[in-house]
Amino acid sequence: MSRTETDSLGTIEIEDGRYWGPQTERARRLFRIGSERFPPVLIRAVGLQKWASARANAALGLLPGDIAGAIAQAAEEIIRGERDADFPLPVWQTGSGTQTNMNANEVISNRANELLGQPLGTRSPVHPNDHVNRGQSSNDSFPAVMHIAAAEAVTARLLPALATLHAALDARAQEWAPIVKLGRTHMMDAVPVSLGMEFAVWARQVKQAEARVNGVLPRLLVLPQGGTAAGTGLNTHPQFAPGFAAELANRLKLPFKANDLPGEGMSAHDVFVELSGVLNVLAVSLNKLGNDIRLLGSGPSSGIAELVIPADGLSSSIMPGKTNPTQAEALTMVCAQVMGNNTTITVAGAQGHLELNVFKPVIIQATLQSITLLADAMESFAEHMVAKLVPNLPRIAENLGKSLMLVTALNPHIGYDRAVKIGKLALAEGLTLKDAAMRLGFLSAEEFDAWVRPDQMLGPTG
Amino acid sequence: MSRTETDSLGTIEIEDGRYWGPQTERARRLFRIGSERFPPVLIRAVGLQKWASARANAALGLLPGDIAGAIAQAAEEIIRGERDADFPLPVWQTGSGTQTNMNANEVISNRANELLGQPLGTRSPVHPNDHVNRGQSSNDSFPAVMHIAAAEAVTARLLPALATLHAALDARAQEWAPIVKLGRTHMMDAVPVSLGMEFAVWARQVKQAEARVNGVLPRLLVLPQGGTAAGTGLNTHPQFAPGFAAELANRLKLPFKANDLPGEGMSAHDVFVELSGVLNVLAVSLNKLGNDIRLLGSGPSSGIAELVIPADGLSSSIMPGKTNPTQAEALTMVCAQVMGNNTTITVAGAQGHLELNVFKPVIIQATLQSITLLADAMESFAEHMVAKLVPNLPRIAENLGKSLMLVTALNPHIGYDRAVKIGKLALAEGLTLKDAAMRLGFLSAEEFDAWVRPDQMLGPTG
Amino acid sequence: MSRTETDSLGTIEIEDGRYWGPQTERARRLFRIGSERFPPVLIRAVGLQKWASARANAALGLLPGDIAGAIAQAAEEIIRGERDADFPLPVWQTGSGTQTNMNANEVISNRANELLGQPLGTRSPVHPNDHVNRGQSSNDSFPAVMHIAAAEAVTARLLPALATLHAALDARAQEWAPIVKLGRTHMMDAVPVSLGMEFAVWARQVKQAEARVNGVLPRLLVLPQGGTAAGTGLNTHPQFAPGFAAELANRLKLPFKANDLPGEGMSAHDVFVELSGVLNVLAVSLNKLGNDIRLLGSGPSSGIAELVIPADGLSSSIMPGKTNPTQAEALTMVCAQVMGNNTTITVAGAQGHLELNVFKPVIIQATLQSITLLADAMESFAEHMVAKLVPNLPRIAENLGKSLMLVTALNPHIGYDRAVKIGKLALAEGLTLKDAAMRLGFLSAEEFDAWVRPDQMLGPTG
Amino acid sequence: MSRTETDSLGTIEIEDGRYWGPQTERARRLFRIGSERFPPVLIRAVGLQKWASARANAALGLLPGDIAGAIAQAAEEIIRGERDADFPLPVWQTGSGTQTNMNANEVISNRANELLGQPLGTRSPVHPNDHVNRGQSSNDSFPAVMHIAAAEAVTARLLPALATLHAALDARAQEWAPIVKLGRTHMMDAVPVSLGMEFAVWARQVKQAEARVNGVLPRLLVLPQGGTAAGTGLNTHPQFAPGFAAELANRLKLPFKANDLPGEGMSAHDVFVELSGVLNVLAVSLNKLGNDIRLLGSGPSSGIAELVIPADGLSSSIMPGKTNPTQAEALTMVCAQVMGNNTTITVAGAQGHLELNVFKPVIIQATLQSITLLADAMESFAEHMVAKLVPNLPRIAENLGKSLMLVTALNPHIGYDRAVKIGKLALAEGLTLKDAAMRLGFLSAEEFDAWVRPDQMLGPTG
Repeated sequence: MSRTETDSLGTIEIEDGRYWGPQTERARRLFRIGSERFPPVLIRAVGLQKWASARANAALGLLPGDIAGAIAQAAEEIIRGERDADFPLPVWQTGSGTQTNMNANEVISNRANELLGQPLGTRSPVHPNDHVNRGQSSNDSFPAVMHIAAAEAVTARLLPALATLHAALDARAQEWAPIVKLGRTHMMDAVPVSLGMEFAVWARQVKQAEARVNGVLPRLLVLPQGGTAAGTGLNTHPQFAPGFAAELANRLKLPFKANDLPGEGMSAHDVFVELSGVLNVLAVSLNKLGNDIRLLGSGPSSGIAELVIPADGLSSSIMPGKTNPTQAEALTMVCAQVMGNNTTITVAGAQGHLELNVFKPVIIQATLQSITLLADAMESFAEHMVAKLVPNLPRIAENLGKSLMLVTALNPHIGYDRAVKIGKLALAEGLTLKDAAMRLGFLSAEEFDAWVRPDQMLGPTG
Repeated sequence: MSRTETDSLGTIEIEDGRYWGPQTERARRLFRIGSERFPPVLIRAVGLQKWASARANAALGLLPGDIAGAIAQAAEEIIRGERDADFPLPVWQTGSGTQTNMNANEVISNRANELLGQPLGTRSPVHPNDHVNRGQSSNDSFPAVMHIAAAEAVTARLLPALATLHAALDARAQEWAPIVKLGRTHMMDAVPVSLGMEFAVWARQVKQAEARVNGVLPRLLVLPQGGTAAGTGLNTHPQFAPGFAAELANRLKLPFKANDLPGEGMSAHDVFVELSGVLNVLAVSLNKLGNDIRLLGSGPSSGIAELVIPADGLSSSIMPGKTNPTQAEALTMVCAQVMGNNTTITVAGAQGHLELNVFKPVIIQATLQSITLLADAMESFAEHMVAKLVPNLPRIAENLGKSLMLVTALNPHIGYDRAVKIGKLALAEGLTLKDAAMRLGFLSAEEFDAWVRPDQMLGPTG
Repeated sequence: MSRTETDSLGTIEIEDGRYWGPQTERARRLFRIGSERFPPVLIRAVGLQKWASARANAALGLLPGDIAGAIAQAAEEIIRGERDADFPLPVWQTGSGTQTNMNANEVISNRANELLGQPLGTRSPVHPNDHVNRGQSSNDSFPAVMHIAAAEAVTARLLPALATLHAALDARAQEWAPIVKLGRTHMMDAVPVSLGMEFAVWARQVKQAEARVNGVLPRLLVLPQGGTAAGTGLNTHPQFAPGFAAELANRLKLPFKANDLPGEGMSAHDVFVELSGVLNVLAVSLNKLGNDIRLLGSGPSSGIAELVIPADGLSSSIMPGKTNPTQAEALTMVCAQVMGNNTTITVAGAQGHLELNVFKPVIIQATLQSITLLADAMESFAEHMVAKLVPNLPRIAENLGKSLMLVTALNPHIGYDRAVKIGKLALAEGLTLKDAAMRLGFLSAEEFDAWVRPDQMLGPTG
Repeated sequence: MSRTETDSLGTIEIEDGRYWGPQTERARRLFRIGSERFPPVLIRAVGLQKWASARANAALGLLPGDIAGAIAQAAEEIIRGERDADFPLPVWQTGSGTQTNMNANEVISNRANELLGQPLGTRSPVHPNDHVNRGQSSNDSFPAVMHIAAAEAVTARLLPALATLHAALDARAQEWAPIVKLGRTHMMDAVPVSLGMEFAVWARQVKQAEARVNGVLPRLLVLPQGGTAAGTGLNTHPQFAPGFAAELANRLKLPFKANDLPGEGMSAHDVFVELSGVLNVLAVSLNKLGNDIRLLGSGPSSGIAELVIPADGLSSSIMPGKTNPTQAEALTMVCAQVMGNNTTITVAGAQGHLELNVFKPVIIQATLQSITLLADAMESFAEHMVAKLVPNLPRIAENLGKSLMLVTALNPHIGYDRAVKIGKLALAEGLTLKDAAMRLGFLSAEEFDAWVRPDQMLGPTG
């Protein structure tokens, strides 16, 4: 069963009960590409954009109160996630996101008219373009939606997840600061470090990600709404853009502002390339974290084995009882995806032409995917890996004791060239450092014992 | 309501009616990362892998007939897409794909036992590891699944879509070969070309993509099944791997073969990096196609405007009656995604360690996404854009007539330096080329008319 | 002619007159890979690092005054670029940059000994490890060099070039603000904008690049010097790191600080990935600038042709008198290189292991190349393109006059649906908008003239 | 001292003795961007392109014999590398490579005129455009040069280096096939493999790179020469393109052919994106090789330590006697560069517009850099690493003996679930597998000894 609607191209059938209209229906038929749909946080932002527009227009007297009220009410349903099923379009549509904006205009006008007692398809008293889209264009509305969705994802998902992972790593850094272990450079035995220091480095990397993300927010919170078509603001009120930003700032408790050169946020999306760049740094940091954990946890018998990987019950399908660093693998796969998304966003961001960048849907889709995956994976890693790691103290001691690099501590006392001779002799003949040192006679046994003390090698010694 | 199952870590509750078992249930709880799930073509390949294994083992007498039969029947249900709901795990799991392999082992053993009259959770007579996974490891089974899924996606989706787009472009190339138009280099007016030649170039690019894809197939059809754990073949029969490949080759009509060094296909996934590289070339080609179409269709009044973009009924939300190259935008967004996926696959492929690359799920997910998006977008572009383009003959003639680059035809007759003088004079004083040539006196009017003929400038002239 | 030197591996011949020693000579023979050498700004930073180390050690009484003085003097020669020929090693060496650090240690010790009256090769009184490298490791010294070189390149080259390009674009934005022209979205005719606004958008993009680069500096100026081997500070004095930073801050007038967790700056190079991400955003911005200029300058007869590209005398080798946007092409090629370098730096940054990232040389090489190319290309583009562009006023007027999108101004007066009808009729029958409007009778001629005024369409209109 | 030359823009001074002319001189002044210059193999290809053109034209009677002879002789000097100093232009020039083509035209005409007794700057009897560039455009000549240079680099450098590395790895694979060692999956202890198998996998990866490179050659050897401006062949002879290809094929012993749709090779460079994709696969393979070697060589005391890394005499500047896998680090840094170049080439290849891709110089520069670095690094790695590795047999035995994963061999005999119990008990209580098995009573000691034999676990066992 369907209803017939009419638009400038003629008539079109729309399935009964659907709130969308002819533009959405045409788009649905024209873009049968892939299965990717915008995530809930984006559809919610679409609702927020229409809600704030209706209120800002109403406050300026540009929409009658009943119409504005019905629009706001319908938008609220979208915000609450109750109309997701009426957003059927794929990511792979027009590059301006126009179809998703028209989808919102149509759903809201139909729902608002219904609230005002009219059947679907009426386009009156609430018109999708003249009222719901009042003073707006897809060209400024969709990028405003992008900014809103990304700002929500960053503040509600990414920053909390960063805090969670940082706290988990930092707790280990404190707890295990006293554990002296072998350091490794070039993946080869080096001088001693503490286990806590290794966690402190990862914690610092995560902490700096917070600073980087926060550094992008001032630009991300600047909204291009108000530029309408081509960035000029034609057909909108001079106070609409600031009013719109104020509505959102007030509701979401984020300091949104209107872009005073809105065309900049429509023809280019540099801030998304910037944000993705910061997510890419985080992926790089987390890739190191995941790799380091699997190196330190390698074994359990014949690897480095200084950390015991948690037995999560997920085993090999053939090797009985095998425990693997599964969370590290999920994490580093996420990192690979985020690095690839950074290329996608770079390529898409670089190809804006004149007054409009038409890679908007893929840019925001990739951005939101990166944020969600990083946040989820960090929380999972904190809970299922960091919190459950156990240091293998006997192995740590064994590994430390075998290293010939403790000889480094002798440099200031006997000079580099003689220290080399001790190290080489020990390696060649399988001697301990002390035995080699004694045989070469460069120092006394007492000096050796006083100078070569791993637990004294963890900081500046002058 | 749930049933209680037991594994090596203890007991675990599984929702009633679910065919999966404890390994899947544990993984479901441990990996709450993202919303991405493997596409149907991958789950189908999981079914095919288990089906072929059961048959190959049965033929070697390694599985009793009734057990093999029940396994094959359960696998068939997966192949037909009837068990998709029993594959709840995210892409972001262990990097070996072990959980998805165990998911299949559990679903099939439960379903097979059910077929043999047992309740879910019995693990007998059909055991997930000892029978469904017989002679297999996740380490060789999941990469085998990757090869099977990619081979099916390439042959069933990508190659046909390439043929469709090629046919559409090639038809235009033939049809519009006689239309002489202005060529453009550096985006500046150049010498004449034919509209057909422009389509012929795009058609050739698409044709070569076919050759490139076909060039990868010989390596893609080589299956690592039989390597079991670590690539050695431990616990499998020497004839299992060839038997397995033969089952699939016979069923799918694709010349699958067993890798004689299966560890190569487990510890590395170079062939997926290679395939992605070829998809990346196609994305590059299609990005040019999309860009060129939007350049030639720019206007309708104040651009190049030599092609009329089809009015698809999707308009601006603010600019009434505006027609945009929507299909070109969807296509080029897909290209950006494919280029990013190539980075993802490169990063993932580069980090295999020793006997196992543990970025398998993200590699196959990105590969299948690239294939699907390219295939869908090419078909959409062929149908909704190429087939509906119309040349704007008056504008083509006008653009051609205005170009001063026709002077190039005079080089062989009067020399480059004098041709420069004619061109510069015409540009500076707004003269026609002929008027400028006459004023400079380098040739006669008859010579000019004989030598400067756009329709004679479309091929080698000596 | 050569001299014979001895190290722990035996003897080795070094060409007469070379200041380098056996470690450099061995590396020269072992790494015959590519022709890339570190640029002068990096070698200068190597000199600065050794100069500051000598002074900091001397101030702490850790080096005798004459030895410290001779080291500082030799380092000064490197800083001044007088010893470039003594740094023969390729970028493709050990991933810690150890060979370049040892190269510096050897050159300085030899030169310092020469200054103190000894022949080359003496290793006394100034020893390369015990004195020149005093309290240092390659593991902290080379990354310190990376930070110093990048900070100098950013502040001395990139930021000034950004200012130059911004000034050039901003001047055009002001000058051409009154020029009303056609805007284009989806590359199709849209509503009017001003030529000044287009330049203002590009200027804004460049301005924001400044903010982004400055946002990285606080992290870039944090030096890992003092971590010595593995990040602990073994064999260095607690006051060495702050003293070192103070020497450089004082000399270079940049607020360098010591990293209080130096291992972070040795085992990871996140700040370089961050900096590269910011350079990548700039490349994205400049790619749009270059593309937009070539679109607006396309023609001169049969393109958009609203800007006249400067005739720089570089012509086609076959098409006489052809002028091309050569500077835009050089600029966008640079952008492609910078985007690729971002992938290189990401891949390299992601693979740090435990206490050391061993992709240091490629990271700094790619970073410095990106900075240099962007700075040079922006200055070239400002001088040879932006400063010489001329608006083609007749063409601008012609393009604007033909656009049917002026109908947008009628939306608030007659509604979107009726505006669509006017636009479609005009396009279909080749009418002017006014004629179409009159024929449909939706408004009076006076109303049309009052409402459709391009010069009134450049800002919010309510 | 300089001479004054005249071109269409006016007069310009050129330093005495320089063979280049006014177009080169103008370009030199207009493009002061970066320090990158084309490598010798590219300049050589420029000479080959002009040499073959002169001969092909002469054979068709389109150039007088003395002029063609003088051109060929001058071109020969370029081919021999004697005129490199007369190619001063940076990579960052017009995107068509026009300036480098004109550079060649000017150098050759000047040198040819000199050979014919005229002073520099005469432009007669040999004219740079009318004779040296006869029947050519930069638009077809420069891409022909790209194909020639890449074909030479691939065949003369890359393929031989692949053969060298393959031979080195394959020799180890054969030699060390009998060495049974522990395999590792997920970086965790797994079932036994042979050391030879590990080398065989790397060798196979390298071997397949050969196949991939050879698969590109048929397209790389197709030359766009003959397309002249815009791809039509205007002003060239129908037999010129085939004659040109034949001259090169004959001289270089490579089956060059003329592109029958030359515009395809001018407006797009898909084959370079394809070639780069194949180089990217090789980088991925080599990254694994480098990483695996450093994992297996980690230690020497407290890592995996199954391979002894050669002591190359390059040590730490602070840790005496430390040996690092320096060649693996150089190799993997090269891989990062090649992966980044792949992004560069992708971005550049994707942005061709209409009849010309104007990212030619950066595409060929990045391609040749990738080829050179890979070839050099592979040869270096083969000589200084693969050839000098030594297996650490005691450690290999120790690591193998400790692994609990040998229990896998029991699966077919006692079932997976009971094998799990044995493994878990052994791990939990520090028992040997045999002791654990005995305690659980699942099999007899004789059975254990018969079934758990590492040297019997290296192949299919049924």
